[in-house]
Amino acid sequence: MTTQELLRRANAAKHSAAFAESARKDALLRSMAASLRQARGEILAANAQDLDAARGQIGEVMLDRLRLTDERIEGMAAGLEQVAQLPDPVGKVLRRIERPNGLKIEKVAVPLGVIAIIYESRPNVTADAAALCLKAGSACVLRGGKEAIRSNRAIVAALRAGAQQAGFDPDLICLVEDTSRASATELMRAEGQIDLLIPRGGAGLIRACVENATVPCIETGTGICHIYVDASADPEMAVRILFNAKTSRPSVCNAAEDCLVHQAIAPVFLPLAAQKLEQAGVELRLDPGAAKIISGKPADAHDFDTEFLDYILGVKVVRDLDEAIAHIAAHSTPHSEAIVTQDEAAAERFCREVDSAAVYVNASTRFTDGGEFGLGCEMGISTQKIGARGPMGLEEITTYKYVIRGSGQIR
Amino acid sequence: MTTQELLRRANAAKHSAAFAESARKDALLRSMAASLRQARGEILAANAQDLDAARGQIGEVMLDRLRLTDERIEGMAAGLEQVAQLPDPVGKVLRRIERPNGLKIEKVAVPLGVIAIIYESRPNVTADAAALCLKAGSACVLRGGKEAIRSNRAIVAALRAGAQQAGFDPDLICLVEDTSRASATELMRAEGQIDLLIPRGGAGLIRACVENATVPCIETGTGICHIYVDASADPEMAVRILFNAKTSRPSVCNAAEDCLVHQAIAPVFLPLAAQKLEQAGVELRLDPGAAKIISGKPADAHDFDTEFLDYILGVKVVRDLDEAIAHIAAHSTPHSEAIVTQDEAAAERFCREVDSAAVYVNASTRFTDGGEFGLGCEMGISTQKIGARGPMGLEEITTYKYVIRGSGQIR
Repeated sequence: MTTQELLRRANAAKHSAAFAESARKDALLRSMAASLRQARGEILAANAQDLDAARGQIGEVMLDRLRLTDERIEGMAAGLEQVAQLPDPVGKVLRRIERPNGLKIEKVAVPLGVIAIIYESRPNVTADAAALCLKAGSACVLRGGKEAIRSNRAIVAALRAGAQQAGFDPDLICLVEDTSRASATELMRAEGQIDLLIPRGGAGLIRACVENATVPCIETGTGICHIYVDASADPEMAVRILFNAKTSRPSVCNAAEDCLVHQAIAPVFLPLAAQKLEQAGVELRLDPGAAKIISGKPADAHDFDTEFLDYILGVKVVRDLDEAIAHIAAHSTPHSEAIVTQDEAAAERFCREVDSAAVYVNASTRFTDGGEFGLGCEMGISTQKIGARGPMGLEEITTYKYVIRGSGQIR
Repeated sequence: MTTQELLRRANAAKHSAAFAESARKDALLRSMAASLRQARGEILAANAQDLDAARGQIGEVMLDRLRLTDERIEGMAAGLEQVAQLPDPVGKVLRRIERPNGLKIEKVAVPLGVIAIIYESRPNVTADAAALCLKAGSACVLRGGKEAIRSNRAIVAALRAGAQQAGFDPDLICLVEDTSRASATELMRAEGQIDLLIPRGGAGLIRACVENATVPCIETGTGICHIYVDASADPEMAVRILFNAKTSRPSVCNAAEDCLVHQAIAPVFLPLAAQKLEQAGVELRLDPGAAKIISGKPADAHDFDTEFLDYILGVKVVRDLDEAIAHIAAHSTPHSEAIVTQDEAAAERFCREVDSAAVYVNASTRFTDGGEFGLGCEMGISTQKIGARGPMGLEEITTYKYVIRGSGQIR
């Protein structure tokens, strides 16, 4: 099926979700979960084929991302059921205004319509993204990576069967089977047929969206995150936070890539931090100031603008808080940044002046996540300022409209 | 000065507004108002030159839009003072979350940074837009039309002098003096230097933004607005609302362009409406159903997709509410639509199923306006679903960030 035909179908189906009551949408998600569990055999078989085809083509980390197991399929099904339990974002009255002329104005949360998601190898995103879109009252158009195409086909077949069993139009969940770059570009330019496009992937995909998209996009997931260790920091706490932010999961966007250290604390902090990080296999890339205190590779011209997503950390000694803030403004993506400090004035300045989606005082940047923020779920982490910023939950994938009730008012 | 240099200056100046307290920003706006009143002579002289240059080039309506008078300058100054009195959108805590691990999360409204506005001939937009951006804590880059360049230069000089007198960086208010299409395109592609671009103008400008922009945009102001007269409508009320929506100010985006009439009421309603509209000089473009009942020009293939902005109205008889909703979905921009009805179920279906920024029951579409909605001001009317929808007040030209305060939490 062409992408155009797929988009036509998703648009024809969208009202099936948009106008459904909460209880029916939740039954839909539970039916999709049951169907997913039932199709476990088919999904695992398809995934085995994907793994066979990918072996030798991609590395072990990527293979592991691609791999499905009984447990991961159960995780997807349980995820659908969890989304069913979240409050319905649709229909919420965000604001009520009554005007002197008697007009009653309500600002009401409403579904977007059709949400397209371009993502990469992890096939569990297929179920997660579908669940969030449907709960938010929108149809979804899913375009995963080519490595996962057989797995995604099997998952989508199960989800569609579940939707049909619950009395919904299965075209609420559409998979783009063409995984070429051309199909991604086609989605980016499908004006009037896609209400929101969410690219989830590397810098190249995000860049392509910025350049080519004529449909509304929310960019996600590029994170050059900083930990700034202030003069007044508790060195032990600073080491603990930095170590967690760098090493607990280096491949994710909220992992720290760079550490900025106030010159006054650098001689104490850096040796402590270096010892712990090196034990965990973290390679340090040092600016000249840091290189005077600890040993490591000298940072090159690009290191402070690179999202390593690996056991690598840029380290720089700064004169003061101003230099830290200026460095972050120049090099951050801007996703998440943390200050470690005991000085309340420094913390407040950092919070006010650092212009990133999430700004932390004395906590790890790894908390930038819909679940950790208490949103119950997450469609991705927006690094733009318009539309949504930071973790995107269900509210962030709806829009609103004004409903105005009168009795014949004219202007 | 090149546009690049201008953008550099606006970015260097932005913190001057972003970190200012409310009282200082309000003093800034009052100082700009005083400076504008003081510069009345220079502004009128510059405007006279603009008018001289434009005479013969543009029509009388456009000349009137371009014209400044003592009264209009006083209106601009008073507008600045009114914005000073509005509540400050910056710093408002939109949501507080306390997590079981002790993290305290605040979602806080913050300035966007640099807002660029591309607009056309009315020079008063220059002062209005600057006031809103500055109050929202952002620097502004203004690119008006070429007809108004001398007036805009004089207005911006006065605003900048007022800013300087109030102790602010005058580069908070930057005017792009190059009014070529190239300068507009340059703004559309100034990634990293513009946080929000608002095109205010005709369909061509909006189209150019969709095609070319790599910076975040909010499209405004295209309005193919519909009045649907339901079977159960009070015919007198329907005529009053339609007449107002069409004729009170045909050149604005919230004016009605098309009237859809339920077949059951068409024989009663259409003759009443036609008589009143024709008295006001409105030309009717009729579908075959309407042409059986009243006289007028037959509608051609494009009429129902045209924003006339003139004394012209498309008229179509529909079988039922479903056909009205489907017609609106196919032809609306989608800006504002109204149903006139006494049937509550029809009203509720219309409100739910019509996917436009503003949906009215028994009121004129002309109320889609920041002032009329009680927002106190307006930067334009967004016709997109992401970022802002409908009238954009101060809140809609800010963004937010998450500030998370911890005591050493790691994940």
